[in-house]
Amino acid sequence: MHALTVAPQQQDSLRLETLPDPAPADHELLVEGLMLGVCGTDREIVAGDYGWAPPGRERLVLGHESLGRVRQAPPGSGFAEGDLVAGIVRRPDPVPCGACAHGEFDMCRNGRYTERGIKEIDGYAATLWTVEADYAVRVDPSLERVGALLEPTTVVAKAWEQVMRIGGRAWFAPGSVLVTGAGPVGLLAALLGRQRGLEVHVLDRVTGGVKPELVRDLGGTYHTGDVEEVLRAVRPDVVIEATGAPSVAFGAMCGLSAYGLLCLTGVSATGRTLRLDAGALNRDLVLENSAVVGSVNAGRGHYAAAAEALAAADVAWLNRMITRRVPLADFARAFEPDPEGVKTVLELGG
Amino acid sequence: MHALTVAPQQQDSLRLETLPDPAPADHELLVEGLMLGVCGTDREIVAGDYGWAPPGRERLVLGHESLGRVRQAPPGSGFAEGDLVAGIVRRPDPVPCGACAHGEFDMCRNGRYTERGIKEIDGYAATLWTVEADYAVRVDPSLERVGALLEPTTVVAKAWEQVMRIGGRAWFAPGSVLVTGAGPVGLLAALLGRQRGLEVHVLDRVTGGVKPELVRDLGGTYHTGDVEEVLRAVRPDVVIEATGAPSVAFGAMCGLSAYGLLCLTGVSATGRTLRLDAGALNRDLVLENSAVVGSVNAGRGHYAAAAEALAAADVAWLNRMITRRVPLADFARAFEPDPEGVKTVLELGG
Repeated sequence: MHALTVAPQQQDSLRLETLPDPAPADHELLVEGLMLGVCGTDREIVAGDYGWAPPGRERLVLGHESLGRVRQAPPGSGFAEGDLVAGIVRRPDPVPCGACAHGEFDMCRNGRYTERGIKEIDGYAATLWTVEADYAVRVDPSLERVGALLEPTTVVAKAWEQVMRIGGRAWFAPGSVLVTGAGPVGLLAALLGRQRGLEVHVLDRVTGGVKPELVRDLGGTYHTGDVEEVLRAVRPDVVIEATGAPSVAFGAMCGLSAYGLLCLTGVSATGRTLRLDAGALNRDLVLENSAVVGSVNAGRGHYAAAAEALAAADVAWLNRMITRRVPLADFARAFEPDPEGVKTVLELGG
Repeated sequence: MHALTVAPQQQDSLRLETLPDPAPADHELLVEGLMLGVCGTDREIVAGDYGWAPPGRERLVLGHESLGRVRQAPPGSGFAEGDLVAGIVRRPDPVPCGACAHGEFDMCRNGRYTERGIKEIDGYAATLWTVEADYAVRVDPSLERVGALLEPTTVVAKAWEQVMRIGGRAWFAPGSVLVTGAGPVGLLAALLGRQRGLEVHVLDRVTGGVKPELVRDLGGTYHTGDVEEVLRAVRPDVVIEATGAPSVAFGAMCGLSAYGLLCLTGVSATGRTLRLDAGALNRDLVLENSAVVGSVNAGRGHYAAAAEALAAADVAWLNRMITRRVPLADFARAFEPDPEGVKTVLELGG
């Protein structure tokens, strides 16, 4: 099989390798890789800034936004040859923390989890891969061309779950959401906001390309400009931050309404110093009963919710989110900048 | 009757006045004022920096941390002559927001609430006051000398409720809390933490006075020094911020553990600018699934929880929290600084 591998924490180490076909264990599916989504974490790994190889090895198979077709499934696994599946990213440590012991590995407390394609286990950037049956998620057959969007959708499904649970600590009847950032996570957050019946606003700095249309076709309103000004105009009940830009994240924090709820999902680079009126921000957070929550990764329940959300979405709209499809042989192109684009996928199939 | 009044937003306006005795309406109790707690909000009002008089009037009766003895109660109210009571502070607007309509006036969305002794309705700094029976809270007879601590305890009861509800969005089994600030709110937060069976740590900058002893006698650990260093040493599951110092609030935010939960209760002055690595803070909040929540004021349920918590506490310990008792005639002294003290109360009784 062919696989895209890197030597984590080393620059210019990305290469396409021919490796032995994987052999599924008794509880595993053998899956033919169809496509792989590329995200900021992959770019960080490829840049040599992030990622960990499996213990004792130098290289890691990249990739965590998976879609494949089952070639072989163990009897009683609930899967059959031909099923579309994606693989869950994270695994708990064999000696689990309290959260992992309760199945909530996305809420791991001790950091000893592993992640396929990121941290110590090989990823899904391969023409053939295996996955434990209980870490495989069925993807609706209609999503054959877009199913690699499942993983970013799980991140968003978790973020919405966090929002609803934290909002629900008192009376909560949200009518509107502002999503900052019209990348894949932002647009999927907007999609799930619409599916919840909310008025949806999306803020991004890009004025061209497909982003404004995608928001409009969702029935949402597209904004550019300063986040605090947009917040004053819109007064949303919920803000989902998906740019990872510290100025946007803290601008959103400063502009929350009463009982405002900000969910941070964007991973920013360190070393971005801001000067801010911390007295005013702390005072407002207290006097307005505001809440800020960070949300990362996703657990099994979020995969199920995301699979449902995608199956209920307009496939043509999802397909337009994929603004670049790169054949595996051209892999380097998938990691080049694409300022007005949304999602790049690698096509793994023949 | 005698009452302590101010002209809000004016300096040096505090005075003791003789006013006509209040006449209770049909649904109101007539209450003899016993004591009144003095807090930072009162000092802000007395300094001319905060507060609003009732519409059409220049002066406001101060005071919201009340304790009194019922002199007269309407039949069927559930109260009788001689009962110890405190009055709830906030009232919803006659045209309520959604939260107020659901009885959650402490979570008011439109800011049109009023507050006794703070915002547009007379307070409890009077030798005789009235209160609607359904805004009166029974206080255990054992608390006759310390019952003015009920109101700050309600703030803490709400903060703990917020912590438990937000923490409960996933697996949550907190074992320890760090409280920043050993003022009344901080010490009461520590008390309620102990009542929940948690390991309690309290951080304050004061090394002398009664604070270290009060924490120790609660079975807690008293810390001085940098909040981030203390957080690294203690790794608490929960942080309750009660200093209102922006550097402490943001230091705590930067030092949270995985799934860390910070509840902000301290109202800071605006205009305290901080430089911080907003990129690192945003990144950590996301990658660690951290949550930050502001909490202010309290609803009926929090008054009930606070009354229970105080009734279950050691009265002698509560009594030591009251480090200054000032007779009403000497009222000005109650607003002077008391750096190592904890709580000042005005004695309203004969």
